[in-house]
Amino acid sequence: MATRNEKNKLSIGVIGLGGRGRLHLSTLLGMNDVEVPAICDLSDERMQMSMDLITASGAKEAEKYEDYRKLLERDDIDGVIIATRTSQFEIAMEAMKAGKYVGTEVGGASSIYECWELVKTSEKTGVPCMLLENCCYGRDEMAIFNMVKKGIFGSLAHCQCGYEHYVRDMVGESFKDISIIPNHYADRNCDTYPTHGLGPVAKLLDINKGNRFMTLTSMASKARGLHEWAIDNLGQDHPMSEIVFAKGDIITTLIKCARGETILIVNDTVLPRPYSRNNRVQGTKAIWMEDNNSIHIAGKSPEDKWESFDSYRETYDHPLWKEYQKLIKEGQESQHEIVGHGGMDYLVIRSFVESVKEGGPVPIDVYDAVTWRVVTVLSEQSIALGSSPVAFLDFTNGKWMYRTPKYVSKYSLDDIYEDLF
Amino acid sequence: MATRNEKNKLSIGVIGLGGRGRLHLSTLLGMNDVEVPAICDLSDERMQMSMDLITASGAKEAEKYEDYRKLLERDDIDGVIIATRTSQFEIAMEAMKAGKYVGTEVGGASSIYECWELVKTSEKTGVPCMLLENCCYGRDEMAIFNMVKKGIFGSLAHCQCGYEHYVRDMVGESFKDISIIPNHYADRNCDTYPTHGLGPVAKLLDINKGNRFMTLTSMASKARGLHEWAIDNLGQDHPMSEIVFAKGDIITTLIKCARGETILIVNDTVLPRPYSRNNRVQGTKAIWMEDNNSIHIAGKSPEDKWESFDSYRETYDHPLWKEYQKLIKEGQESQHEIVGHGGMDYLVIRSFVESVKEGGPVPIDVYDAVTWRVVTVLSEQSIALGSSPVAFLDFTNGKWMYRTPKYVSKYSLDDIYEDLF
Repeated sequence: MATRNEKNKLSIGVIGLGGRGRLHLSTLLGMNDVEVPAICDLSDERMQMSMDLITASGAKEAEKYEDYRKLLERDDIDGVIIATRTSQFEIAMEAMKAGKYVGTEVGGASSIYECWELVKTSEKTGVPCMLLENCCYGRDEMAIFNMVKKGIFGSLAHCQCGYEHYVRDMVGESFKDISIIPNHYADRNCDTYPTHGLGPVAKLLDINKGNRFMTLTSMASKARGLHEWAIDNLGQDHPMSEIVFAKGDIITTLIKCARGETILIVNDTVLPRPYSRNNRVQGTKAIWMEDNNSIHIAGKSPEDKWESFDSYRETYDHPLWKEYQKLIKEGQESQHEIVGHGGMDYLVIRSFVESVKEGGPVPIDVYDAVTWRVVTVLSEQSIALGSSPVAFLDFTNGKWMYRTPKYVSKYSLDDIYEDLF
Repeated sequence: MATRNEKNKLSIGVIGLGGRGRLHLSTLLGMNDVEVPAICDLSDERMQMSMDLITASGAKEAEKYEDYRKLLERDDIDGVIIATRTSQFEIAMEAMKAGKYVGTEVGGASSIYECWELVKTSEKTGVPCMLLENCCYGRDEMAIFNMVKKGIFGSLAHCQCGYEHYVRDMVGESFKDISIIPNHYADRNCDTYPTHGLGPVAKLLDINKGNRFMTLTSMASKARGLHEWAIDNLGQDHPMSEIVFAKGDIITTLIKCARGETILIVNDTVLPRPYSRNNRVQGTKAIWMEDNNSIHIAGKSPEDKWESFDSYRETYDHPLWKEYQKLIKEGQESQHEIVGHGGMDYLVIRSFVESVKEGGPVPIDVYDAVTWRVVTVLSEQSIALGSSPVAFLDFTNGKWMYRTPKYVSKYSLDDIYEDLF
């Protein structure tokens, strides 16, 4: 895709301009080598808020589209970022057919079929599709990635992760006008949001590149959190108080990998608690745990004692993270919000942009995207079947055995982005 | 069993005099109202070490038995503590048939049949059988029990627990003379030691008294820890290095309860790590976590923030724990090791002794014992079946619905022991 490299600026369209889409828009507007000539949403209000951002940044005004198909018809767009609430898979497929690099936001899948379709569309068109999983670019996740690949953990046996984020108020609010908004919590008993935790762990375990997920079993606790919220906030007589919520308050999922590692994923969003991604990485030589910010390394840490992860983080910060720190220091990209979610929001978008510029593969590709997102469907099946194990699909059709992960070896910014995973 | 109350001292026999049995012996020797007239073991060496303890305590010399049946024939024994490595179920049943109160050490079960037999023997003979699960008397576990029963956690939805104890060196050593010692690690792929974590959680969730375990699913990671130990410590040519270990390094088990709560149990013993019982208790109002020594209470703790558990522990220390602190202060029982494992070893034995004195029920009864221990068998089945869910047995035959937990209401020491769970 050499044409892209000949241009002075890369053209990215943004489809879906909710909070998340506008954050990505801001990030793109802050990049000297990127322009956003087209934006798309169904809401005038969101469109206007986005135009305000563009104006404030001093960039050229973007064309506004209600229909994403029209946006995709443009010849001058190199890639699109899709941050819609629904229809991500359909839009992504249309975009690939139109030859645009695709970056989609995170979330679960609705069916196995849509996962296969996404894969086959990317394979047939030859256009990469990246999952914009920002947590793969979390500082701790990247430092641990670095340490694992250096062998400090020995042979990995078990990882834990999750999405532990108390969003009961937000979810509850969405039920206030119950006639309009359908909601996963009411209808689906499963891990609806697996990728923030699972993505970085999958990268640690070389999933789809030498390893793969084999089976999964899920268990759901009773559902009480949202019902209590409704009673307390809307009263007994509100229709929300009548809902029998399908989704258990805590969904716990276990995955077994081809190479024998196990993964625990916790989805925990409607019971009061501090935020955590529940990370734990455990090998034959070391264990790291997010919740106590600690590490223990055999033969190095005092016996039976945790050490603070702070100094290890400093020592093993990922090269990409260090580049990013330099970027902040130099103020090179200072005009935009560079520190969203501690920087990872910037890094994931920059990584997408680098891939489009290069015309090469994306670091979180279509196989990763569907392998992580399908956990929602499989956990739903498992729970419905009384926690029966269900088999993962091999979306690579056997290619996982022959694909090799390329870890960071070179330290210029471009190369790091390209070779990250 | 009034005869016991007429005697000046209670008579307890100790069967099995390894490290654990000798600890219990010491604890009993330190009690003013208890005597140990009989001890039993197959090894002369262990017997002699025990006699030395008795002599050192100034107590009357005990009769030594190789055959526990002979010990059980004595009329003057009120109860026995069984701390043998094997045959606990058989010895316990013989003891109940002989009319002796039974306290057994912890560990997993080998078959469902032996669990039923233990229950039926206790029911037929009318003799209580207590599981000496010391972790039910851990300071944190008791304070949390106290808080949960006061309603501070709201409605419980999810608990986590485990046995995370790096004992690879100890296990490895036991393989050195490979011709003699069989070992669970080589032959059984399951959670071989579930009760330290599960016991206190089961008490929180009123298991067998209004609630019960319904199903379980288990997953095992690959087994690498012991193999690496063998290579590093014994060399490639030692027979241990040839063993293909059955037991995965990390065994993760999920349990679903009748009332809808879920439980996660982790068994983690051969990968380097600091000790933990992996406790986490989560309800609609609060969450507690052992590994960061923290609690979060909705509407009380700062939003999205953990608070140290230290001051809550002080405030909510269980009445029994406070009595115990008084005991230490007064030096009332100062001649023996009163602080084994932070005090819980003393408390569990004292609880058994109080039950025998009273002639009443034991706080961790035969239904609890088998419901917790059978997890070993069921997790073995589940793992063998590819993490299929397997059903728990209702060892109470439906009585769990009608049995009511009695929580601590009175504060004299005797009453507290009796009514603890």
